[in-house]
Amino acid sequence: MTSLTLFSPAGAVPKADAVKRAAKRLAQLGFEVAIDADALSRQQRFAGDDAARLTALHRIADAAPSVALATRGGYGLTRLLDQIDWSRIASSIERGTRWVGYSDLTALQNGLIARHKGLAMWSGPLACDDFGRTEADGGVDEITRDCFVEAMSGALEAVGFRETTGGFDGLEARGRLWGGNLTVLCSLLGTPHWPKVRGGLLFLEDVNEHPYRVERMLLQLQQAGVIDNQAAVLLGDFSGAAKTPNDRGYGLKDAIAALRACTKTPVLTGLPFGHVRTKVCLPVGGTVELYVQGREAILGWQSDPRLAHVHEHGDDCGPDCGPDCGHDHAHH
Amino acid sequence: MTSLTLFSPAGAVPKADAVKRAAKRLAQLGFEVAIDADALSRQQRFAGDDAARLTALHRIADAAPSVALATRGGYGLTRLLDQIDWSRIASSIERGTRWVGYSDLTALQNGLIARHKGLAMWSGPLACDDFGRTEADGGVDEITRDCFVEAMSGALEAVGFRETTGGFDGLEARGRLWGGNLTVLCSLLGTPHWPKVRGGLLFLEDVNEHPYRVERMLLQLQQAGVIDNQAAVLLGDFSGAAKTPNDRGYGLKDAIAALRACTKTPVLTGLPFGHVRTKVCLPVGGTVELYVQGREAILGWQSDPRLAHVHEHGDDCGPDCGPDCGHDHAHH
Repeated sequence: MTSLTLFSPAGAVPKADAVKRAAKRLAQLGFEVAIDADALSRQQRFAGDDAARLTALHRIADAAPSVALATRGGYGLTRLLDQIDWSRIASSIERGTRWVGYSDLTALQNGLIARHKGLAMWSGPLACDDFGRTEADGGVDEITRDCFVEAMSGALEAVGFRETTGGFDGLEARGRLWGGNLTVLCSLLGTPHWPKVRGGLLFLEDVNEHPYRVERMLLQLQQAGVIDNQAAVLLGDFSGAAKTPNDRGYGLKDAIAALRACTKTPVLTGLPFGHVRTKVCLPVGGTVELYVQGREAILGWQSDPRLAHVHEHGDDCGPDCGPDCGHDHAHH
Repeated sequence: MTSLTLFSPAGAVPKADAVKRAAKRLAQLGFEVAIDADALSRQQRFAGDDAARLTALHRIADAAPSVALATRGGYGLTRLLDQIDWSRIASSIERGTRWVGYSDLTALQNGLIARHKGLAMWSGPLACDDFGRTEADGGVDEITRDCFVEAMSGALEAVGFRETTGGFDGLEARGRLWGGNLTVLCSLLGTPHWPKVRGGLLFLEDVNEHPYRVERMLLQLQQAGVIDNQAAVLLGDFSGAAKTPNDRGYGLKDAIAALRACTKTPVLTGLPFGHVRTKVCLPVGGTVELYVQGREAILGWQSDPRLAHVHEHGDDCGPDCGPDCGHDHAHH
């Protein structure tokens, strides 16, 4: 049995039911689930006060379960960054812990890269947002679930997706995978928690941010010299923001065009990641390789060689197969 | 007559009427008003494409009117920062131009400080937002208007306000005044447009940002070493964001407390500045002095000595006068 601990490093869990549902589903998937003592704690909008959340992080690092899965994001890790004992977190990873989450977890994941290059956490689902959904709300997404299970077993060594812009046929890139939520990542700029990755593959997503705000952050990364120094940028989902009459047609495509106009770095779109139901697991901090053939992109990495397996693009499904081939592509 | 040019460096003006009203009011105040050729231009959400807005900035700098007042903020200066000819802007200031605005103008104002320490622009009203209000919408705020007129004449050399936290009696600080809109300022972090001010007085405001987002940005500035290196922080207005049930009492006071918990720098509140009707004019980039006596704070600077005059705290109104003294304190 693979041990898995649910913990809450940021926002409070509004309803314990979602955690219970997630724990039950994860148990059915074969995980030995534990719920951290403070996973359901609450202080204002936080999952316990700063000391409680910091202590929980260190407690889980010391216990080093196979999987440390956050219940949810929200906001809260920023308050802890200066006090986290990063060597304890790093040690847990060296002992085999896979830390998983997204959104506010971006701060933890990239803060680790800032100190311990070569160690990876996992950008992937959150217990409440993904495994805690009611059946009435559609339950857990199958691709999200399967990708998570494979990643946690060490079997996952690639994800495939349909690139949605085009023009990148033949692109190959190799480097450190980093990034996550754009707003949270930008909130690390200028601080000691910023990972100075050069030649990397930067992936980004965000939710409820108007395209002009997405553009402002992308241009900040460009003006800071970050984008030009990457091998590639991979954009996930950017949804949830309402358009305004004053936009007059301005939208996300223009924000992305504004970035592309000032960099030669390939900016790909369509990565199945973000505040959406279908999200893959990605080894944030790990070294990955990107291959694009036509519109099909594959992001691969070294995994446990005993369990080598390509998710979504198996023996029967070549890299050229399209959205109608019947395989579980994480189309977006 | 004092020449004044209205220009649009960022968002498009939705309705020309507001510009016309502003021009009329400003003329009545004694300004010789000109409207830049592209002030009413439009491309999507922008006041003309990037080339048009950049050209307008340089055109105004070269013409060097006494006052260059932006019609509105919105979003747009970020796109121009890498291409602005800062020496042309600087030259206009040396020739006497007072550039005025707030919100998105924060990028221009602080980008200038990054290159030309010692030159000041003016954080103050915007033509549409302030002088362009219909009478039905309350017209132009009297304090905003009077403070602007005094500042543009060179007469304004101090603003007074009631500090709203308390505990700063006797505080004196001196340094460069910088800052403005918190989100826009943070979007400069890590870029060449960031002004590396040490020992300064940092003033901040924002609108429609939930307190947790305000906190995240304040903590970013702290973690980046910015806050500890300032003589004082002056917080203006932070309104417009809706509370959520999940806040459970968390609000702006907690965000400010989180900042104060990790710095010894005095963090004052109550500066009458931000996306509110009543806003003072502040020489952003200039050297200012702060004095606090009881709850009354005065922010003063060297002005034209021929016209020396203290706004709101004249001969009949000592620094101890309170909110009920009958004077036009810019209370907030």
